[in-house]
Amino acid sequence: MRVARAFNCHLGLADMSQQMSCKELMKVLGLGAVAFILGVEWLNWLKRRLRDSRGPLKEVLFFPSPQVCVEHLFIRHKHFPCACPLPHGVETSFSRLLVHLLSSRVSLDLCMFSFSHMELSRAILLLHKRGVVVRVVTDRDYMTITGSQIGALRKAGICVRHEMSSAVHMHHKFALVDSRKLITGSLNWTLTAVQSNKENVMVTEEPELVGPYQQEFQKLWEANNPANHKPQCTNGQLNIKTCKDK
Amino acid sequence: MRVARAFNCHLGLADMSQQMSCKELMKVLGLGAVAFILGVEWLNWLKRRLRDSRGPLKEVLFFPSPQVCVEHLFIRHKHFPCACPLPHGVETSFSRLLVHLLSSRVSLDLCMFSFSHMELSRAILLLHKRGVVVRVVTDRDYMTITGSQIGALRKAGICVRHEMSSAVHMHHKFALVDSRKLITGSLNWTLTAVQSNKENVMVTEEPELVGPYQQEFQKLWEANNPANHKPQCTNGQLNIKTCKDK
Repeated sequence: MRVARAFNCHLGLADMSQQMSCKELMKVLGLGAVAFILGVEWLNWLKRRLRDSRGPLKEVLFFPSPQVCVEHLFIRHKHFPCACPLPHGVETSFSRLLVHLLSSRVSLDLCMFSFSHMELSRAILLLHKRGVVVRVVTDRDYMTITGSQIGALRKAGICVRHEMSSAVHMHHKFALVDSRKLITGSLNWTLTAVQSNKENVMVTEEPELVGPYQQEFQKLWEANNPANHKPQCTNGQLNIKTCKDK
Repeated sequence: MRVARAFNCHLGLADMSQQMSCKELMKVLGLGAVAFILGVEWLNWLKRRLRDSRGPLKEVLFFPSPQVCVEHLFIRHKHFPCACPLPHGVETSFSRLLVHLLSSRVSLDLCMFSFSHMELSRAILLLHKRGVVVRVVTDRDYMTITGSQIGALRKAGICVRHEMSSAVHMHHKFALVDSRKLITGSLNWTLTAVQSNKENVMVTEEPELVGPYQQEFQKLWEANNPANHKPQCTNGQLNIKTCKDK
């Protein structure tokens, strides 16, 4: 009798309901649901295992990057038809760099020798507006060159410190997103570097690489604290006054 | 009887030899040797497993690097008392960089924006002398600045190609050792960069990172082949004449 009923389970639901008691039908449906959930969970586990076996994020971007529209990266949760003449919906090295920067949720620590790129400045200002704690260490000489965005960041209240010694350059070009994602390479944040030069940027979440850069940032941040130095220029004083130093 | 003999194994070799037959003694010694070898093998396996679990090489070097004697890195298999006044036997970021470069056995592919450091030039010339295939891609403008080592490399017969376009900079600063070790960062190979600036260099054997840089090198190497361009300057012609192009 039971064998016959089990065989009938392969038939349609209507037939089953005729031949099975309501209790048995519930049992079969319940077991099916459990099997389905277990299957889905197993697939997720498999997916996680496959992802973990590839290790932490490692991405390499090369420049120059072609000019494309990146407006959609700045305006979240809004689909709007951008009217600019640049190509739309194209992923480039520059758009990938922006995506990684704009993924900051808590903090962004930036060590940048030369920073004059308008859209990268816009990204940093947007993060600051979103409440992300942004800290910038830059070069003493290059922060005042024509087109430098350092002034705009300071005016917005972002904490910027610069290399205190006039004899050396702060030549790093790296960023740390939420203290877990490192963006580093040869690329200064200038229009020429992004659109013309042969440059490289590496993005990684490898803790063995992120850790030393985070320590280096902290070291430079503390070493260039204007509070520990005699005031030498207006910029140093401005730094103390305008940003909420963390 | 056997139990008593086994107990006697804990005594000295002289006592054992008195109480055991020669055959049994050989057995014990043989088993001991096998156990010892297995133990050593197991330890080696454990060491390999621990090393593998850390994954491929990842090392980060920060600059400026203090000046120390690095003479011992150039002169192999020879212990000589170096008479220079610099500190000896000290490991620095710069000495680590040299160690990684001088580990080249087959090839060294170098993309360097500015190259004027004498000791790094000496390292490259030494590798070339040892038979390592050295290829260099550099910047058009910076290869002719005062102190540039590019001329010295070309004169020695090393293949050097430069960015053909006068409108852009070849701003990379990376090297590939034997196509498996990547050395990349913000550091130009100049004395100021090594001894004064705040700079970073990352050394890794992570295939996911090495691969793209190797492709980029090959792309630049081919794109800047002077044979495919109209002769524009003496340097370009010199490049064709002096090096055995691979």
